[in-house]
Amino acid sequence: MARRTGRRPGNPGTREGILDAARTAFAERGFDGASIRAIAAAAAVDPALVHHYFGTKDQLFLAAMNAPFDPRELLPKVLAGDRESIGERLVRLFLGLWDSPAGTAGVALLRSALSNEWTARLLREFLTTQVLRRVLDNLDVDPAELPLRGSLVASQLIGLAMMRHLIRLEPVASAAPETLVTMIGPTVQRYLTGPLPTPPPPV
Amino acid sequence: MARRTGRRPGNPGTREGILDAARTAFAERGFDGASIRAIAAAAAVDPALVHHYFGTKDQLFLAAMNAPFDPRELLPKVLAGDRESIGERLVRLFLGLWDSPAGTAGVALLRSALSNEWTARLLREFLTTQVLRRVLDNLDVDPAELPLRGSLVASQLIGLAMMRHLIRLEPVASAAPETLVTMIGPTVQRYLTGPLPTPPPPV
Repeated sequence: MARRTGRRPGNPGTREGILDAARTAFAERGFDGASIRAIAAAAAVDPALVHHYFGTKDQLFLAAMNAPFDPRELLPKVLAGDRESIGERLVRLFLGLWDSPAGTAGVALLRSALSNEWTARLLREFLTTQVLRRVLDNLDVDPAELPLRGSLVASQLIGLAMMRHLIRLEPVASAAPETLVTMIGPTVQRYLTGPLPTPPPPV
Repeated sequence: MARRTGRRPGNPGTREGILDAARTAFAERGFDGASIRAIAAAAAVDPALVHHYFGTKDQLFLAAMNAPFDPRELLPKVLAGDRESIGERLVRLFLGLWDSPAGTAGVALLRSALSNEWTARLLREFLTTQVLRRVLDNLDVDPAELPLRGSLVASQLIGLAMMRHLIRLEPVASAAPETLVTMIGPTVQRYLTGPLPTPPPPV
């Protein structure tokens, strides 16, 4: 029977080949340092095919790391609203994600990041370039402070996910989300917009 | 050649047998629920031999879970001094531990807890009964609030260890300890002694 569509089916291994090359490139060179052109070359395909399959570099990155959610869809909710309660909104969004089916993928990603240096690098790049950079670019803080603020927020939120979903320490494991929002929201707010310590004087 | 000491060498497997029985008991019944008597019975030895090898139940528990440090030796430093800076002292102690050789054991324990439910249970019991209970018993707060306060502190400190030593997100990964004490100390202080949210009204 004649094939009725004119579209090339492509090699079923091509998609996986591109994802493999992307994982290598993002882990070795970081999100900013990896180019679609270099990924395509490593996968021995045309860059246009990478765009055809995956869209933008952001989308390719999310696919390569099996990201449990797309921050570009969710973060606008956090960023809308007043600056003084962004910490609470970020914690509320974070808890909602982990309590949803995306949380299962999150647990798998976190486990993998802890036993596999490449997954750890991809998770770092994900947190930095896809989540924290987007949040912090919208706050009116000194850009030089963004990395420290971002990694402090990550330390609290990843610790919360660990205790609630992996270690399952009570009562955090089964506390009502709003209890945690009330307690942890101000922490995240302070890390985002509060004063940072002045650097200690050189010894 | 005649053996010159009168002390029985014991079965070299006995020590490991007791530790295995202890791990099972502590994971299944928790620290408080597991008795030396039951552990000795499971290992088919006399309870006196358990005490002889390991000392108290606390000491047996620390040995069974390969605890990277003994909280009873370290926590007095944190608990001495004024109540308003206990958060900073706890963060400083925690960072010092993870930056020491004990940190390597801590990384191994955390990795294991994430892939193994039994190790997760032992880590929970360790945090609850050996660390947080000792800290919180010395603060003048409502005993009913201790579990929530303790698990909030654990969420921040374990997240800090994750970001600094496992995921290695910069600049937290290589920040000067005192920078982190300044930023994270007030968080831990608020979780320990700050106001808790009133429970939300039933829906």
